[in-house]
Amino acid sequence: MEIYLIRHGIAVERGIYTQDRERPLTEKGITKTTKVAQKLLDIGVTFEYILTSPLVRAYQTAEILKNVGLSKTISIHEPLAPGGDIQLWLQWLSNHYHEAQRIALVGHQPDLGNWAEMLILGDIKNQIVVKKAGIIGVKMIDNQELIGNSELFLLTSPKWFID
Amino acid sequence: MEIYLIRHGIAVERGIYTQDRERPLTEKGITKTTKVAQKLLDIGVTFEYILTSPLVRAYQTAEILKNVGLSKTISIHEPLAPGGDIQLWLQWLSNHYHEAQRIALVGHQPDLGNWAEMLILGDIKNQIVVKKAGIIGVKMIDNQELIGNSELFLLTSPKWFID
Repeated sequence: MEIYLIRHGIAVERGIYTQDRERPLTEKGITKTTKVAQKLLDIGVTFEYILTSPLVRAYQTAEILKNVGLSKTISIHEPLAPGGDIQLWLQWLSNHYHEAQRIALVGHQPDLGNWAEMLILGDIKNQIVVKKAGIIGVKMIDNQELIGNSELFLLTSPKWFID
Repeated sequence: MEIYLIRHGIAVERGIYTQDRERPLTEKGITKTTKVAQKLLDIGVTFEYILTSPLVRAYQTAEILKNVGLSKTISIHEPLAPGGDIQLWLQWLSNHYHEAQRIALVGHQPDLGNWAEMLILGDIKNQIVVKKAGIIGVKMIDNQELIGNSELFLLTSPKWFID
């Protein structure tokens, strides 16, 4: 099983919207995110599940992934909101694991980098950083428990992926 | 300062050459490695130094990087041979650090993954794996000591980089 932790695209700056969670993607954010999604499709990556943070900039990112054809559905998953608990996602996963080859999680920094560190190291070091519309790819090894035993196989950003 | 740990391209199988260190790149290995080198150049990455393992498949990879224009010179660096000691490279670096923005290290697995883990975590976990002609990008943060304090900003393979 492969987990793709995907950060939302470029969003409008803080301050214009009263609530941080309402900030939408900018036009540039939509364009770059669409190119990233299209490149994933070209490589042949599709997802059984796309789970997304409920914040607008993440949900829009997930919609773009779905609309290019990377998945049939998207689901809001509260633990992907900033500060969310990876254990709650692992609980969800224990009920869906048998069905999934590839799962996309759309969310925020530093949470996504921290979740990746939990999966590969079992600990948070704040030394894996994913840029906007960037991807962290983590792979389960030999059906071992994910936390602390997974392999990092990808860390990329639009600069390294689509340009 | 950014360190690019680059694994050699696809080489001919073991057994044809009596010495492992003599195995050259295959035609496919040359083609893929050249595309990776060209893509780095297109993105605007160049190196003040390319250091390489003395083994033929690594040296050929370094030559390809140089020949597309990523660096003016390449140097054989014994600590990049399989099982080499990262501390010897750090000694070299202490004499060259002030001159370098970007350094490429061409070598082998599992050493390159392990060196990256030493730089970002200060410890070897065997959970960062770079494929042939793949790249690990590690960045020094705020002039802190490299070991255990660096940031991982890139982990990619030809599949995710050039295809």
